[in-house]
Amino acid sequence: MCRWAAYIGPELFLEDVIASPCHSLIAQSHDAHEAKTRTNGDGFGVAWYGAREEPGLYRDILPAWSDQNLRSLSRQIRSHLFLAHVRASTGGVTSRMNCHPFVSGKWSFMHNGQIGHFDRLRRGLESRLDDAIYAQKLGSTDSELIFLLMLQHGLDHDPARALVEAVNTIKSEAARIGVPAFIRLTAAFSDGHRLYAVRYATDRFAPSLYTATLAPNAGLCVVSEPLDGEAGNWMPVPPNSFVTVKDTKRITIEPFMVTEESAPTLESA
Amino acid sequence: MCRWAAYIGPELFLEDVIASPCHSLIAQSHDAHEAKTRTNGDGFGVAWYGAREEPGLYRDILPAWSDQNLRSLSRQIRSHLFLAHVRASTGGVTSRMNCHPFVSGKWSFMHNGQIGHFDRLRRGLESRLDDAIYAQKLGSTDSELIFLLMLQHGLDHDPARALVEAVNTIKSEAARIGVPAFIRLTAAFSDGHRLYAVRYATDRFAPSLYTATLAPNAGLCVVSEPLDGEAGNWMPVPPNSFVTVKDTKRITIEPFMVTEESAPTLESA
Amino acid sequence: MCRWAAYIGPELFLEDVIASPCHSLIAQSHDAHEAKTRTNGDGFGVAWYGAREEPGLYRDILPAWSDQNLRSLSRQIRSHLFLAHVRASTGGVTSRMNCHPFVSGKWSFMHNGQIGHFDRLRRGLESRLDDAIYAQKLGSTDSELIFLLMLQHGLDHDPARALVEAVNTIKSEAARIGVPAFIRLTAAFSDGHRLYAVRYATDRFAPSLYTATLAPNAGLCVVSEPLDGEAGNWMPVPPNSFVTVKDTKRITIEPFMVTEESAPTLESA
Amino acid sequence: MCRWAAYIGPELFLEDVIASPCHSLIAQSHDAHEAKTRTNGDGFGVAWYGAREEPGLYRDILPAWSDQNLRSLSRQIRSHLFLAHVRASTGGVTSRMNCHPFVSGKWSFMHNGQIGHFDRLRRGLESRLDDAIYAQKLGSTDSELIFLLMLQHGLDHDPARALVEAVNTIKSEAARIGVPAFIRLTAAFSDGHRLYAVRYATDRFAPSLYTATLAPNAGLCVVSEPLDGEAGNWMPVPPNSFVTVKDTKRITIEPFMVTEESAPTLESA
Repeated sequence: MCRWAAYIGPELFLEDVIASPCHSLIAQSHDAHEAKTRTNGDGFGVAWYGAREEPGLYRDILPAWSDQNLRSLSRQIRSHLFLAHVRASTGGVTSRMNCHPFVSGKWSFMHNGQIGHFDRLRRGLESRLDDAIYAQKLGSTDSELIFLLMLQHGLDHDPARALVEAVNTIKSEAARIGVPAFIRLTAAFSDGHRLYAVRYATDRFAPSLYTATLAPNAGLCVVSEPLDGEAGNWMPVPPNSFVTVKDTKRITIEPFMVTEESAPTLESA
Repeated sequence: MCRWAAYIGPELFLEDVIASPCHSLIAQSHDAHEAKTRTNGDGFGVAWYGAREEPGLYRDILPAWSDQNLRSLSRQIRSHLFLAHVRASTGGVTSRMNCHPFVSGKWSFMHNGQIGHFDRLRRGLESRLDDAIYAQKLGSTDSELIFLLMLQHGLDHDPARALVEAVNTIKSEAARIGVPAFIRLTAAFSDGHRLYAVRYATDRFAPSLYTATLAPNAGLCVVSEPLDGEAGNWMPVPPNSFVTVKDTKRITIEPFMVTEESAPTLESA
Repeated sequence: MCRWAAYIGPELFLEDVIASPCHSLIAQSHDAHEAKTRTNGDGFGVAWYGAREEPGLYRDILPAWSDQNLRSLSRQIRSHLFLAHVRASTGGVTSRMNCHPFVSGKWSFMHNGQIGHFDRLRRGLESRLDDAIYAQKLGSTDSELIFLLMLQHGLDHDPARALVEAVNTIKSEAARIGVPAFIRLTAAFSDGHRLYAVRYATDRFAPSLYTATLAPNAGLCVVSEPLDGEAGNWMPVPPNSFVTVKDTKRITIEPFMVTEESAPTLESA
Repeated sequence: MCRWAAYIGPELFLEDVIASPCHSLIAQSHDAHEAKTRTNGDGFGVAWYGAREEPGLYRDILPAWSDQNLRSLSRQIRSHLFLAHVRASTGGVTSRMNCHPFVSGKWSFMHNGQIGHFDRLRRGLESRLDDAIYAQKLGSTDSELIFLLMLQHGLDHDPARALVEAVNTIKSEAARIGVPAFIRLTAAFSDGHRLYAVRYATDRFAPSLYTATLAPNAGLCVVSEPLDGEAGNWMPVPPNSFVTVKDTKRITIEPFMVTEESAPTLESA
């Protein structure tokens, strides 16, 4: 399990989310409260949108709390839209290629959760990727593969649909090889214009997801765990929800895969 | 505060102390029980005596739990005497040069604790080192400086005396600049033949120190926190003690700086 | 292109090959003479056989010349059989998982050379691996894939045959997708008992390969480039040769894929 | 010896200097032409002025050519004034703290060259620093110490004078302990408004220094080696010169320490 925070709104220094709040993402890397693992010290990353269509990306394998570069970069860089992540590995090795966010063209993606039985599902899932998408695979995590499956299933055209298809593909592959589908998925992703997030699980334990409007500038934060250590201003997003933020005044929260879930045998659909 | 373990006895794979016990040093890097900080993810190191008079040294800045090299090395390397350490920084940056153990010639040294007001004491203490010893300084921690002060004060000739002198030097420097002396010091060090350890503090909170005879081969472990998570076989060493292990059958525990401590104004002696 | 050195014979400190000769492997990391790239600074690794059936493995992404851990480890560790490698990337990212040697059970493998058109061949080659072997893939290099193909084709039973099959598989896949087969392959590998090496290319430019008996102890070195900077004692191995070292007195050099090569259209066999 | 490039002018992406020119700084990290060492793979760094008075700082120990973070950051970050450096160690260990540029408040500094006999001069020079300046020392290089000596001698008030004093302090210390003063110093530094550079040596071999106006936007580059591999547009700065760039139209080149140098015995002045 990992911790992450995404921001969209008026330009903000990255540090206002990553480093400054009393329960900032860096603080959570040392001591998370709502995560299965308190320590998220297996690397970190930040993707931000700025001068170009594609995001900037800074990832490293040190714990976030001890990286001087991250401190300096987040003090200097301002962005209207960014994703930041601290990692607690559930299996994959600690390497830069396995750190979130993952980036492809204009898209960025980060994830908290896991695909159950990933060791057995991995190959079958990879075989469903087109060559051009498979060639983008640099690491070995289930998270990166979810992102690639979304790209495969039309992320550019319909983000929510692409994610549904990615989840269905995982379920279908699980059915094919005869293991129960087990997915926990709290993720955020962006094309540089809108911010998307999802809270979903195949069981009752979807990892937590919150939104809040930041006081100083009315920007919007979407996070796996409140930044200031208290739930006060923070709104929990219900399980099985898909969040679309067009701008800080237009937030849509829709059901995600609810129909499919109500039919318990649909995993192999 | 950090966690460490030292071993002396029949040759043993490093992993039997570092990785295998249920509350091994690697497990403690993720979740220590008796430390002020639960997470000790600011690097690690191991010094072991083997084919040469001077010890081998492997240190890196990753958390111990995620370093594949450490896993492989500790599975291959056997030693009759080694020191292993996981670091939780109390101030210094995370760099290899600041990871314990520190090594000089045949000597190795590692430490849990801190020197209070180190920022203000550092220069004065460094100025008391001979050029040849000062030239060995590679990092910026209080721990390394304690080791250099011990070298300065005759570590080769009388280890216990050298440590007393090092502590007195720190107290004397604190008195000189007018700050209260505050030292917490649980350390282990070795010349490749004997294993030395100390548990000491200027206040009542000397960091914990334990010894135990390992069941499989009757070797002796000296640790900052029991390896198997239960104090069963583990003997706490009293505060203000100096431990000398000549071999696994000859362990001496002597008072350390007790006389000086009983006279509260001796800090500037 | 990379540089590497393998040793088999009486126990030797790793440093006697890695660090001490005037044109040692570490020296070659800074300034190779016979390589296409003078600098081999994209990581390094060493696999050595010692206390266990499986080898120890130490790999990191720093240039070999600046890694203090490598210096210390190679001063302490003695082995009768080891492989050491300095990397110059021909494409893959710099990560520990992409550093040679690669290890699987008792086997270790390292490589200098490349598979042409690897981007296009990679997926088809991976699809030919059994699940259990595919699951061992941790990085993204052509070199690791050659090793996995060898495992797939019976490395345990007939090393030379396994390598022939691996090469034929690459050629066959190239034929299938319609690109010319282009392979340069100077590799060493071992099961802890014998040392194997190959010098091969599909064109006339097989990367160099040499053997020499070391003066101090009559051990045998197999290298991509002479260690002492002069070819004096060093014997070049002819192109398209397979080398088997049972012990330092029994070295066999056999033709490798010569029959196939003489029939220029056999690439697609 | 290292390679570096500084830029002042209209806002530019860092990559236009660091990564894009055919003989860019990243290319020079692999293959410098005018340096004593061709390879500059012992880390890199960049300091840039942007949203705040103090510069941002990104340094790491990998070779510049293999750092994906550097590629992404330099594609995203624009600055009107920045310093970039690739390091070839002349002695100090490879650590982030030893990578240039060094930063203090609004000042940044980077250096190519060395102080001869630094091992023997280091302590005496450090003892001349005020406590507050000494406390800023994080690494162990001669370069960082030159920067601290400049801060000690009034960098905020008179940059050229501060550098003269720093050089004189080194000469004076060399005289005191009886070693010949040997300094090679090609450096750039900035307060975020002006860019300063110096080319100086106590012998006839001052490391090279060039300036050029960049075609695309008329910004000014000051470099240790021309970026495009040809001296065409590049103007060599004479030895013993101090360069002040107020803006791209007002460049001053003044003699540096010429008077002192003409009197060969003045080293101990």
